Amino acid sequence: MKTQSCISGLVCPKCQNRYDHREAHNLCSCGSPLLAEYDIRRAAAAAGPEAIKNRPASLWRYEEMLPVLDGANIVSLGEGWTPLIPLAAAGAKYGFGKLYMKDEGIIPTGTFKARGAAMGVSKAKELGIRHVAMPTNGNAGAAWAAYAARAGMEAHILMPEDAPLITRNEIVAAGAQVHLVRGLISDCGKILARSIPARGWYDVSTLKEPYRIEGKKTMGYEIAEQMGWQVPDVIAYPTGGGVGIIGIYKALTEMRDLGWIGEKLPRLVAVQAAGCAPIVEAWRKKAGTSEFFPNSRTIAFGINVPRALGDFLVLDALYRTNGYAVAVDDAEILKTIPELASLEGTFICPEGAAVFAGLKKLRAGNWLKAGETAVLLNTGAGIKYPDTLKFDLPYCPVDGTV
Amino acid sequence: MKTQSCISGLVCPKCQNRYDHREAHNLCSCGSPLLAEYDIRRAAAAAGPEAIKNRPASLWRYEEMLPVLDGANIVSLGEGWTPLIPLAAAGAKYGFGKLYMKDEGIIPTGTFKARGAAMGVSKAKELGIRHVAMPTNGNAGAAWAAYAARAGMEAHILMPEDAPLITRNEIVAAGAQVHLVRGLISDCGKILARSIPARGWYDVSTLKEPYRIEGKKTMGYEIAEQMGWQVPDVIAYPTGGGVGIIGIYKALTEMRDLGWIGEKLPRLVAVQAAGCAPIVEAWRKKAGTSEFFPNSRTIAFGINVPRALGDFLVLDALYRTNGYAVAVDDAEILKTIPELASLEGTFICPEGAAVFAGLKKLRAGNWLKAGETAVLLNTGAGIKYPDTLKFDLPYCPVDGTV
Repeated sequence: MKTQSCISGLVCPKCQNRYDHREAHNLCSCGSPLLAEYDIRRAAAAAGPEAIKNRPASLWRYEEMLPVLDGANIVSLGEGWTPLIPLAAAGAKYGFGKLYMKDEGIIPTGTFKARGAAMGVSKAKELGIRHVAMPTNGNAGAAWAAYAARAGMEAHILMPEDAPLITRNEIVAAGAQVHLVRGLISDCGKILARSIPARGWYDVSTLKEPYRIEGKKTMGYEIAEQMGWQVPDVIAYPTGGGVGIIGIYKALTEMRDLGWIGEKLPRLVAVQAAGCAPIVEAWRKKAGTSEFFPNSRTIAFGINVPRALGDFLVLDALYRTNGYAVAVDDAEILKTIPELASLEGTFICPEGAAVFAGLKKLRAGNWLKAGETAVLLNTGAGIKYPDTLKFDLPYCPVDGTV
Repeated sequence: MKTQSCISGLVCPKCQNRYDHREAHNLCSCGSPLLAEYDIRRAAAAAGPEAIKNRPASLWRYEEMLPVLDGANIVSLGEGWTPLIPLAAAGAKYGFGKLYMKDEGIIPTGTFKARGAAMGVSKAKELGIRHVAMPTNGNAGAAWAAYAARAGMEAHILMPEDAPLITRNEIVAAGAQVHLVRGLISDCGKILARSIPARGWYDVSTLKEPYRIEGKKTMGYEIAEQMGWQVPDVIAYPTGGGVGIIGIYKALTEMRDLGWIGEKLPRLVAVQAAGCAPIVEAWRKKAGTSEFFPNSRTIAFGINVPRALGDFLVLDALYRTNGYAVAVDDAEILKTIPELASLEGTFICPEGAAVFAGLKKLRAGNWLKAGETAVLLNTGAGIKYPDTLKFDLPYCPVDGTV
């Protein structure tokens, strides 16, 4: 059955070249990622907050502003509509006005990567693609392998040998063709770049196909809807490849153009690890692009991206929203995980912990004001990181008491 | 703000003794677990499928049939309304009519234990309880520690030293008081039984407080609602302590009495591991209670319960619904995890895999007919079990191609 999708084409944000969304595309001929465009007038006429209110609790509720044309192509494991959790205790402790966490751990595969994979695989299915290929540090590969399996599509995945065991197991269990590489994700990417032309696979590397962003942007739509279409003052996001923040910014401008929210957009905050902070360095210099961050290192491996293909889009989103880029070190990240767990009951991933640590700094420096509302994105479940924390525990003898 | 709860009291299913739900209780004086009772007539008048349809996507949507009286006491991390996922490819392969999976991996803490903990902690908060105590094999303790932290309540937890590391980390991170024991969960229980009287803690061990079932039963409500208030022919559940199946049966009879579903209830299936199958053995003999299963062993540690306090309630649910009890061995469980992942994209826990293996047997034996609809419960995310699968993967050289 046809969806209400109002997609009108693909456009290059750098050179404004346009492409047909009814064909498979990767990058623009100029090398930039492509973005999906929609007929905003038609979408605004077709739906609005009232119509959407009673739709199913998944990211597919925003179908007018999503790229899939035929509902039969939707490949779903129940992704989206993750909870927006008030962090009242943590907020009070650090003097936040209102603080919320969008918990992307409560989603298939346990990370926000499911959104991009659900959308990317669904649209690839619609375009008749049978083989997808990508390099991964773990979570993205796990998500794409799962959705590809569900679509009956073959996935070819390359990952560094030190990628987390659990993500390796997810990928293999889903039946993907996977190879380990004694190197970095960039080495995996180079192997794929050599292999893909001969194989005819579709390259679904970060930002090399246009629809992963469309999945990720639904986080922005959900935040607005869950707050009653009143956007917060600040949204803070852990920033590696940058697809999340690019997607949320895209959602915000779309919703503004649709008239679903007002003119005032939240200030967007990119949080990086001190050991890998190319966006923070570029933002400090007010540069339009970032430089390669050498010898990058952080326990938050999801944001260990020395240079992102979409850096210019991330920086643009920060500048246009009067946002901020902040770095936190690994010690702060590690301390934050149990702190937030004991205050709020939320067991989050290191990347999500980085965001809370970053917001604390912005609040302490009063960039984030006392009365303001902030939303932090936790991009994955803490349970996907079994080795991050180490605790020594007391024993009780079998015949003892406590 | 007051909820619409229609709870009217606590009743013993063995001796019919009644207790006041406005006070904290554990077991009945006769030793049986207590069950919450509701004013069905009042609940049916207050709400129905139409009224519920547009409520928030969480287990709290069934507030008339839940025990919490004041909404301010609800301790929530966004639990419930988990997806009901069609398993079309797996269904076709094994000749099922319609096959669905209720995916309880997509919930805070990654397992269905979150439902019981959310409800148990919320009601404990309402009753003014400040300290809860329990033994755990991991997942239940992780869930109760998280919700207790969110409630500002102290949790005292005892766990075997070989309980999964990730659950240990969740519990410690949440700030619970935890001790390891060189023994089994039953040894932990004995230590607690000695400690609790002196400490004045509230015992929240499985079935020793009445509200964990009330959380778990919401799985039954959600299945019915997600199927348009048409219940399936069969619901299959991995059965250890039995709270899930007891809860679902309770939900089914309540919904029938409310008039929300028809008279015909699904046949309930208890799936156990061959290495720990006390319910299966009792059911074969048509016994009313189970016997202790010696030297129990299975990789599905969530259903390694040699004798459950609520065995008589589980067996009663099977007999009254013309259900079945089936055991599967560990090899079948292990084989099922990647099979279902590659067919459906769902990476499930060993207990959920046991259920699919069990259903295959019942379909092969034609107890489950070709045209019938079945729902299998996956009780947790596969990502909580990083060590269950072992794969050897090929390497690709850094300068190679694939």
